[in-house]
Order: sequence, then structure tokens, then C-alpha cells
Amino acid sequence: VKGSDLVILCAPVEIIPSLVKTISPALKEDCIVTDVGSTKETLCNECMEVIPEKVTFVGSHPMAGSEKSGLENATSNLFENRSCFITPIAEKTPAIEMVIRFWEALGMSCICVSPEEHDAIAAHISHLPHLLASVLCAYLSDKNHLWKSFAGTGLMDTTRIASGSPDIWDSIIRQNIAEIELSLEGFQKELKKLDSLIKNRDYEAIRSFLVKGKEFRDSL
Amino acid sequence: VKGSDLVILCAPVEIIPSLVKTISPALKEDCIVTDVGSTKETLCNECMEVIPEKVTFVGSHPMAGSEKSGLENATSNLFENRSCFITPIAEKTPAIEMVIRFWEALGMSCICVSPEEHDAIAAHISHLPHLLASVLCAYLSDKNHLWKSFAGTGLMDTTRIASGSPDIWDSIIRQNIAEIELSLEGFQKELKKLDSLIKNRDYEAIRSFLVKGKEFRDSL
Repeated sequence: VKGSDLVILCAPVEIIPSLVKTISPALKEDCIVTDVGSTKETLCNECMEVIPEKVTFVGSHPMAGSEKSGLENATSNLFENRSCFITPIAEKTPAIEMVIRFWEALGMSCICVSPEEHDAIAAHISHLPHLLASVLCAYLSDKNHLWKSFAGTGLMDTTRIASGSPDIWDSIIRQNIAEIELSLEGFQKELKKLDSLIKNRDYEAIRSFLVKGKEFRDSL
Repeated sequence: VKGSDLVILCAPVEIIPSLVKTISPALKEDCIVTDVGSTKETLCNECMEVIPEKVTFVGSHPMAGSEKSGLENATSNLFENRSCFITPIAEKTPAIEMVIRFWEALGMSCICVSPEEHDAIAAHISHLPHLLASVLCAYLSDKNHLWKSFAGTGLMDTTRIASGSPDIWDSIIRQNIAEIELSLEGFQKELKKLDSLIKNRDYEAIRSFLVKGKEFRDSL
């Protein structure tokens, strides 16, 4: 593996397996292929089916990015101090080590989980927050448009990711729909709890909710 | 009014009316008092009751701030290019003009609305986003705590405001509970719509949701 080629595929998640297939004839023996897709189970399974025998595929998902796309929005420190999922399917191999070293060299800390586990975690900490931002924006867009003039830093930050590309998010949602459904159900239950507290004017319990939320956020 | 004193009260919303009462004996004739509280109807009514006859009270709510508090977190450009609610109770008076000029001098654009209107708007564009961030954090804090290591920029931004002071937010919620209840009901209906689309695997309609959200966010 030392000195092996490392190929990093960056494309919408539904394209990556076909990209692997397309480049396969050109891949050298012992070459390592990884990707940066936001979903992993379907993607890794499909990639494993088409990857040549002497080539190793190891999935990655660097948790960094912005709502912007295009070369003109590139930043040199995008990956610094951020975390990266590594989702190997086989046992720990030198190929996995190499992928980890690559992301670490860009300033990331890597954590290995299975593709299935990745999808459950990503649904909760990335896909759910994205959908909540989208729903909040969709909800507010039906209100008086003059309200927009009052948008403060809080609204700007909580909704920033709703500006992300609908094409990219359409692909992510399609590939992780089951986990997203679960995370959304859980969130709605939690929201319903707060809703009841508000309806009951149970200010003590509402305050405990705020404290619990703050403790979590402060620990990130 | 030209040359009048302008007093700006910065304190938790439930304290402000009692502050007005406390400082009343020291206020000069023609003095103007404003505040920076995040709620307006209850607050302005209570302030109007205790304000001396020759002094004018005009409510303000500058839409700027952060989840941090304390002098050590002060920034000199906090108000630049942000908007500010002005919520006068009486007709347009020179006092209102003076309050507007003050915030404009700090780089803000001011919009006059009634205290009631303010509270409805603020519930939707500020208090609701805050509660959603708190609920998301409270929800995630019951999950595997290792998931936290994967927090990306999306989660960090959407939840930043959940770090706000529970004391300050407790006061805000108490003073605007009716409007918050309405905004939360509306949001839950919208979320339920998306939930149904997800359950039905209606990807076309989910995509329209994302597009609608993006259009709103891009217009902020």
C-alpha cells in the first residue's frame, strides 16, 4: 500500500458507484478508492459490487462543507479540526490506514464506523438539521414577506444550510430515507413534548428543556 | 427633543419596567427612554404605566446579538447592517425619530411596528428558531454521546443559539408565550407535511420543499 495511488471521488452520492465502474479499467493494482459522499450503506454496497478485485474501496465522509458549491467558493482550510467518518466494509487493512492518514494530513480526526451506523448517525446530526432548516424556511416563506427584513443572526445561522443544493440533498435523502424517517419521528416526539409544556404554561419544565439543550450544545 | 437625553435600558425583559420605575425620579423632562428587550407588548404596556408624564418611552428591539453574554464577548460592529424593531405606542413623535437616529448611527435599519405585531413576528423569526435549536439539542443529547464527535458545520450553525442563557430565554418565553404557541403549532403542521412526504417516499414533493426553503433562505 505504501506508495499506492489514492483516488478520491467527489460527486453526488448516486453517481459515485457508476464513476467507480467507469474508472475501473484505468485503476492500477493495489490502488485505493475512497469518496466523500454523505450517505454510505447503499453507496458502499454498490461500489463494492463494481470495484476491481485488486483495488480496495474504503468509504469516507468528511464532515465539512458549506451551503455553497463551485470552485469560486473553495477554501483552503475547509477540513481543519473537523471530523471524518471512515466506513470500511472489510477488516482493518493498510488501505484503511492510508485513507485515514490522507484526511488527517488535511487536519481532520477520523472515526471508523460501519456504513449502516454512519447512515443512522448522519441522519440525526446532519440530514435532520438540514430538513428542519428547510421546513423552517418553507414555513416562513408563507408568512408576510416583510418579516424577512427583521431576520437576525439567530435566524441566519439556524437556516444557513437550507441554501444547500436541492439536487445534492435530493440524492442524500433518497439514499438515506429510512434513517431520516426515524430521526424525524424522534424529533417530532421531542417537539411535541415541548409543545405540551408550552400549552400547559409549565415554565419550570420549559426552562429544563433549554438547560438540557444548552448543555448539549456547549459540549460540542 | 433635540439635545434631549436618551436612556437605553439593557436588561432581561421582565426587569425593564421596574428599572424604568427605579430611574424615574432621576429622569429629566423631555428625556427619552428605550430598551433592547426581545418582547414588546407586555413590556411596553408595563413601561407606559410607570413612565413619568414628561418622559417618552419608545420600545426598541435590535436584531443582533450572539449566544454569548458578558463584557468579554463585546464586539464593536454588533449592530452593523442588522435591523431594529421600533415599537412606539403613540403617534409618530420627535422622540421616535431620535430613537431611530440612534440605532441608524450604529449601522442598523429601523422598522416601526406595533408592540403586538412585533411579538408575532419575533415569535416566528427568533423565538421559534431558538426553541427548535433547543429541542434538536435536547433530542440529540439522549442519543449515543459519541455521535457528538461527528458534529459538522451544519449542526454547529443550526444549534448555535441553543447555547443562549436559559434565564434570558425563560423571560422571553414567559412574555410571549401565546405567540410562541401559535408559531410552534404552525411549524409542526409544516413539519408533519414533510413527514408524510417522507413516509410516502414522494421524492418530487420533498425536492419542492427543499427548493421552497432554499428560495426563502437565499432571499434573506
